[in-house]
Amino acid sequence: MTVTDELLRNARRYAADFDKGDLPLPPARQIAVLACMDARLNPYGLLGLSEGDAHVIRNAGGVVTADEVRSLSISQRLLGTREIVLIHHTDCGMLTFSDDEFRAQVLADTGIKPEWAAEAFADLDQDVRQSIARIKASPFIPHKDSVRGFVYEVKSGELREVHP
Amino acid sequence: MTVTDELLRNARRYAADFDKGDLPLPPARQIAVLACMDARLNPYGLLGLSEGDAHVIRNAGGVVTADEVRSLSISQRLLGTREIVLIHHTDCGMLTFSDDEFRAQVLADTGIKPEWAAEAFADLDQDVRQSIARIKASPFIPHKDSVRGFVYEVKSGELREVHP
Repeated sequence: MTVTDELLRNARRYAADFDKGDLPLPPARQIAVLACMDARLNPYGLLGLSEGDAHVIRNAGGVVTADEVRSLSISQRLLGTREIVLIHHTDCGMLTFSDDEFRAQVLADTGIKPEWAAEAFADLDQDVRQSIARIKASPFIPHKDSVRGFVYEVKSGELREVHP
Repeated sequence: MTVTDELLRNARRYAADFDKGDLPLPPARQIAVLACMDARLNPYGLLGLSEGDAHVIRNAGGVVTADEVRSLSISQRLLGTREIVLIHHTDCGMLTFSDDEFRAQVLADTGIKPEWAAEAFADLDQDVRQSIARIKASPFIPHKDSVRGFVYEVKSGELREVHP
């Protein structure tokens, strides 16, 4: 039995108890959360989100690349979100290597060098600011009055705001 | 008070009750979930995931672009995940427009045409298969023995597997 099969068993239990079939497509809280994919960071528990509340966008590092601009653009332009919350976190894997190292290792293992940057970073607060700067610079994300960035502390469970 | 401020109040409560400070960086279940950002789709509730279990990657549509290849590559190569679960869902916003329409509207509103596709799709099952195909085609994602795709039914809470 794979882990996927075990999760499917959980999904059957979720469906059996399901009572949220009437929720509309646009997020009720009009907010998009962009967070690292890290297993320890649970945006639902942390932010008290329930089904229907918010768009949740996640990737390695919680960084902003073209695909996050795409998702945020669709979120705001078509589905009515107005605020953005960015969450990086302590003990992030992206702090443990450099883009050059990652791409060289992939090249050595596969014979092909990725055409994309790994988006590793050396300083958490600086990378949160970098993500905010990329959002502010994008012409495709119309609503920027509330774009705030945070670092989640995986040891304490606390969320710390990164100020400009 | 913004919605962000309300979520920060929830975050303070989460930290006050926090008892998961010892979790390691690599996901315990060695699995990565790639799902749509939709507000009604809660991967934690649906799959029974807890803090520490799985990488969760999300974007508009749950599609696979270069940035999801980046995240999955880092997830598998550096952090030990071995299975991938893809989740699209019914009533998805991505079913309601075409890439051409989206890019033309952005051009009309901003004067700039996005250099990326919006990744809209007309058929849910076909797009799940397309996402699997992109993963299978990538030289940067090493472990492909368990890459399975699903459609989450937002009305019933059920998860339906898409077979090749």
